[in-house]
Amino acid sequence: MIELDWDRLASLCATAITKAGGDEATAAALTDAVVAAERRGNSPVGVAHLMDYLDSLRCGRINGTPRPVVRNDRRSVITAAADDGIAQVAYHAARPALLHAVRECGVAVLSISESYTVGELGYYAFDLAAEGLVALAAANSTPLMSVYGAPDAIAGTNPLSFALPGDPPRLVDQASSAVAWVRLRNAAAAGESIPPDWAFDADGNPTTDAKAALLGAVLPFGGIKGSNLASIIELLAVLSGASFSIDAPDFASGDTPPRVGMFLVALDPDAFSADYLDRVDSHFERLRDRYGIDFGRYYSSVERPRLPDDLFARLEKAGQPTPAS
Amino acid sequence: MIELDWDRLASLCATAITKAGGDEATAAALTDAVVAAERRGNSPVGVAHLMDYLDSLRCGRINGTPRPVVRNDRRSVITAAADDGIAQVAYHAARPALLHAVRECGVAVLSISESYTVGELGYYAFDLAAEGLVALAAANSTPLMSVYGAPDAIAGTNPLSFALPGDPPRLVDQASSAVAWVRLRNAAAAGESIPPDWAFDADGNPTTDAKAALLGAVLPFGGIKGSNLASIIELLAVLSGASFSIDAPDFASGDTPPRVGMFLVALDPDAFSADYLDRVDSHFERLRDRYGIDFGRYYSSVERPRLPDDLFARLEKAGQPTPAS
Repeated sequence: MIELDWDRLASLCATAITKAGGDEATAAALTDAVVAAERRGNSPVGVAHLMDYLDSLRCGRINGTPRPVVRNDRRSVITAAADDGIAQVAYHAARPALLHAVRECGVAVLSISESYTVGELGYYAFDLAAEGLVALAAANSTPLMSVYGAPDAIAGTNPLSFALPGDPPRLVDQASSAVAWVRLRNAAAAGESIPPDWAFDADGNPTTDAKAALLGAVLPFGGIKGSNLASIIELLAVLSGASFSIDAPDFASGDTPPRVGMFLVALDPDAFSADYLDRVDSHFERLRDRYGIDFGRYYSSVERPRLPDDLFARLEKAGQPTPAS
Repeated sequence: MIELDWDRLASLCATAITKAGGDEATAAALTDAVVAAERRGNSPVGVAHLMDYLDSLRCGRINGTPRPVVRNDRRSVITAAADDGIAQVAYHAARPALLHAVRECGVAVLSISESYTVGELGYYAFDLAAEGLVALAAANSTPLMSVYGAPDAIAGTNPLSFALPGDPPRLVDQASSAVAWVRLRNAAAAGESIPPDWAFDADGNPTTDAKAALLGAVLPFGGIKGSNLASIIELLAVLSGASFSIDAPDFASGDTPPRVGMFLVALDPDAFSADYLDRVDSHFERLRDRYGIDFGRYYSSVERPRLPDDLFARLEKAGQPTPAS
């Protein structure tokens, strides 16, 4: 493992993003998201996932110079068409309007379309919680998951995230799948077998072969109820025109942007009751004392970033000037 | 089974509610909800559940003459304190403000507190979908469920509902529990055993004895992810001051109102994109044609109500004048 500091990590990320074709806004927003994920110990959607972004920038699956179009035609609804750029740029473009609307109206919704897959969904919810808001986020993605027993991947792993203000905020961030897709990819890379309730193979049959699973579909958590939840998430994520997952090209190959979406609800707790956050704190205190349950505090607070040697080497290399040919 | 018609069913319900101490608004709102549940074939929350309401009215767990307090201090947030009455009365009191807010602002939230358990949660979401709105509803209830493996019932079976406009609207309505609590109660009454992943006994151990399960706690669907979802639902349901489930007295015994809550988001699809409902229809059409999936159409459309003989007898008896003593 290579230990570095946050400034150095951010600088390496920004350089690599710029080198791959990201403009200033893209480099700033994506660096912020990647560093935030690493700070929470959520490394699968940190630097490791940045490698997907860099490849997508180079191959045209991400527009590195997007002009997101933000609209706020109705008081409490903000839409942001990401222009095939990353969701983080559209989010930061829409964020001032979202914060204004929620403070004025008590609740506001941001709906993002035309974006690359959202990365760590908790990033957006956590950011709003840090502003004192209760946040619920939902996103769809490229088709990786079966729902209702369908033999094909017809849904994304459609994550759901929820965050509450606090110091630090409390955060839940979970995929609708029984297992994260990256865990399948890792198991396949390591030649490991997987439990039979994680995935279907390409023929729609349960499999313990991780490589076969990558050609098939991951399964939702919680059976039919999980399939319903994944479907609700998708129906919310596409409100302002994002593609359904089944229509979205692969986020990790080819040259076509996935154009998926995100749905984000921001709630001002003061608009509901003056003592909400105090009541919630007392509730969590007794759950922790009596049952050892500490809701939304399952992420880490990493003090110094550490990267596997090979990942660090890839990040550093991604930012180096191309040799003259 | 006794077959009757809708008018007769409604009349029997209204008479029984009035007899149990419900005022005109309570009788109208509860009759409407009970009849709607029976029309969708959702009989466990139809007339069968009305018996719980009648007992609760008689015993003081429901205030039959509530004065709900509706507030709309911020443009998109409506709160309704139900004054220990049924959620349906608070909902109908707040409904005009909710519809006005969502049409003006694109999204609006109704938060209900101080209410009896919501009955069929889909009732509220379906009603909004019939107005052309996309609706998401969440409610907490009295403590019946363990979360995160806790040995006690510390959460409600906290349902989630989602509805989309259509003819008829599409509706999902599901508890956060692996199984509906009424199914445990029915299994116990019938002396049947239950699968070991449905419930804990009073000592926090998995049990196949339905009677032991009634003294313990039902389990959430989907393990930790299901526990997270149930917790998110509860944290939304109590926004405007409802009790946490762990503090709510039993909805079916005693004389103390449960004072739980509901969270309802109404979204105007036109505020997001002009063609949302068309896109959704096309998507559902292909899912149905290719995979036999017909999202949100799992409920029935019952033509004529039918009640088991004993339930019909109880309903009729509940409305009869008390003999002079």
